[in-house]
Amino acid sequence: MKKLAILGSTGSIGHSTLSICESFPDRYQVISLAAGSNIDVAYAQCLRWRPKAISLATEKLASDLKTRLKAGIEVLHGTAGSIQVATLPEVNFVVSAIVGVAGLEATYAAVCAGKTIGLANKECLVAAGELIIAAAKQHNVALLPIDSEHNAVHQCMRGGTAAEVKQIWLTASGGPFRNTPLTNFDRITPQQALKHPTWIMGQRITIDSATMMNKGFEVIEACRLFSLPPTQVRVTIHPQSTVHSLVEFVDGSILAQISVTDMRLPILYALAYPERVAVTEKETLTFDLTALSQLDFSIPDLTRFPCLRLAYEAAEAGGKACIALNAADEIAVAAFLAGDIPFMGIPSTIEAVLQLTSGQPPASILEVLEADLAARESAREVIARQSTGVRR
Amino acid sequence: MKKLAILGSTGSIGHSTLSICESFPDRYQVISLAAGSNIDVAYAQCLRWRPKAISLATEKLASDLKTRLKAGIEVLHGTAGSIQVATLPEVNFVVSAIVGVAGLEATYAAVCAGKTIGLANKECLVAAGELIIAAAKQHNVALLPIDSEHNAVHQCMRGGTAAEVKQIWLTASGGPFRNTPLTNFDRITPQQALKHPTWIMGQRITIDSATMMNKGFEVIEACRLFSLPPTQVRVTIHPQSTVHSLVEFVDGSILAQISVTDMRLPILYALAYPERVAVTEKETLTFDLTALSQLDFSIPDLTRFPCLRLAYEAAEAGGKACIALNAADEIAVAAFLAGDIPFMGIPSTIEAVLQLTSGQPPASILEVLEADLAARESAREVIARQSTGVRR
Repeated sequence: MKKLAILGSTGSIGHSTLSICESFPDRYQVISLAAGSNIDVAYAQCLRWRPKAISLATEKLASDLKTRLKAGIEVLHGTAGSIQVATLPEVNFVVSAIVGVAGLEATYAAVCAGKTIGLANKECLVAAGELIIAAAKQHNVALLPIDSEHNAVHQCMRGGTAAEVKQIWLTASGGPFRNTPLTNFDRITPQQALKHPTWIMGQRITIDSATMMNKGFEVIEACRLFSLPPTQVRVTIHPQSTVHSLVEFVDGSILAQISVTDMRLPILYALAYPERVAVTEKETLTFDLTALSQLDFSIPDLTRFPCLRLAYEAAEAGGKACIALNAADEIAVAAFLAGDIPFMGIPSTIEAVLQLTSGQPPASILEVLEADLAARESAREVIARQSTGVRR
Repeated sequence: MKKLAILGSTGSIGHSTLSICESFPDRYQVISLAAGSNIDVAYAQCLRWRPKAISLATEKLASDLKTRLKAGIEVLHGTAGSIQVATLPEVNFVVSAIVGVAGLEATYAAVCAGKTIGLANKECLVAAGELIIAAAKQHNVALLPIDSEHNAVHQCMRGGTAAEVKQIWLTASGGPFRNTPLTNFDRITPQQALKHPTWIMGQRITIDSATMMNKGFEVIEACRLFSLPPTQVRVTIHPQSTVHSLVEFVDGSILAQISVTDMRLPILYALAYPERVAVTEKETLTFDLTALSQLDFSIPDLTRFPCLRLAYEAAEAGGKACIALNAADEIAVAAFLAGDIPFMGIPSTIEAVLQLTSGQPPASILEVLEADLAARESAREVIARQSTGVRR
């Protein structure tokens, strides 16, 4: 029986994880939850799952939830609360799906407490990769990626060792602008950028898909998860999104992972690893092989997608560059959505922030958070200088 | 250092294996060879590789080769000779690539002697599958498939256990008649059938591709190699032949193996297993991912390809049915090529022979050979009855 702490239980990964717990009550038990501010959903989850503890974002929210709940569930709050739910002694598997740096400290604490991690939080590997990986090694903890690309790589990597990998290929949809002429890129509006051709997602990740920065983050995550240099982590634009990623071995063989696009599959893979558990909803979760026609693969143009180039540069640079990349991107995307900078102002902002970033890799999560704040401040200054020249 | 016996050294698998030994002299050493009657090539191989021993088909050939060779290489002949080269104490890896039942006894002896097997001989698994698999288990011997489909499955199976497999998909080119109207099938001439759209091969295997019997044999081999019932071994027509096979796991994930079509790759995989060795000729042996466009997969029509249906029936029937399937096919293909029976006479002959076949699974290789001879005789009789009605 795996005993779960679900960090980010009211988000989409949290929902999918609970749907798996629903399907496999004899395999997965919910011990604790961490949510943000969606108190109604958190309340419903408490009634359904009767966790030992739940943590919400603030003291006020926790107090409100406590009032609504009968006794028997410990209600915590803030970073300390999420750390506590992630490290309860009964918990042996932590689903890390809190978005943003908020998920960092609880995940790091869970790794240090020896819990197996199902990892969906990007910042853990992008901003704090060295620390998390070092702690995972030290505590002999498995980091099982939940997002579909890294999960696919994890599956294909079973066909060999890291030293036998020539390169891995992360597939990318290419976003809405993969065929837009480059000369039109500066006229891209937030409305256009928010229309993702394949998925409906949050605003930041949708813009990150349009700039391909999301794929840049995935490159950094892959380098860390699979101990590969950036030169061995490639991106291929594959608009059909049926092949989730590929691993090319030194002996000329490529293994590819294919499945329907449903987050429950990689979550179930991570939860069940090293076993594979039979899916119950066969109709919706079974891939129809005859659908495997007309797959396209092409190499992304780094002139069109400078964010991807910047991610490779940050990965090569090391130090605090990846922290700055992530923080500056978040600020720049918000500024673009607010109409403060043009679409191509996103990479130029990030590039300017990266040029201002230096220093050793962070030695603690606190240093990660400090570097993150510094890069955000730096990004705001860069934008303030730029935006004086932009038509509002 | 792997020390090789190459059974079938003058054939195409033998050539490819020696080309690998050429590229990796520090990894693979040629200890012994077995060839058929191509004495000139056998002689050249002796000069180049200085094996300890070589076996040829007949005493006369062996005697001629002995005369041409200087001392130092033992020259043997016949089944006893091939058994001897396969079981030399120095040998630790046997490449089994003699075509036909001739390869059976030597391979079986090698398994019983504890040698790791790189398996390219179809009859070992189709006709003597139970015996070979049982002996391999008893002697803790790895059977590493060399043909591209099973080799692909072997690679993908590393992603899970046999019990976690929902089904495997062997890809098939579909041969030259996959789009021919069924009503035209009885007018197919040997000349048409010998034009394979993708590969240039021997006559029997080319006709077996056109009838899809070759894929039927592969289904039987896969059942035995991977301990799967016939219902879990599927065939998909994939004319591009870039995906060599796929494994579908119970959790909804599919792993697919992709590479250039070059026999050296699966041979190198088998020789190096469980390691993966870097290919040296990067230009020709590296797959271009951007070539992965327009992949088609479809389910074969068993009305069009009754040989494939017969193979599934033989696999289900067990006993001596698979021996009869292989033997009757060989005779029927020869009769078709000689103009004695029409194209669709191949499956009807085999079906008639299967109906005459009964009995327990063979308890020894001798029983396999006896059942093989009996089925051939039976096929000849069926054809003699049929061919009186065929226009010559």
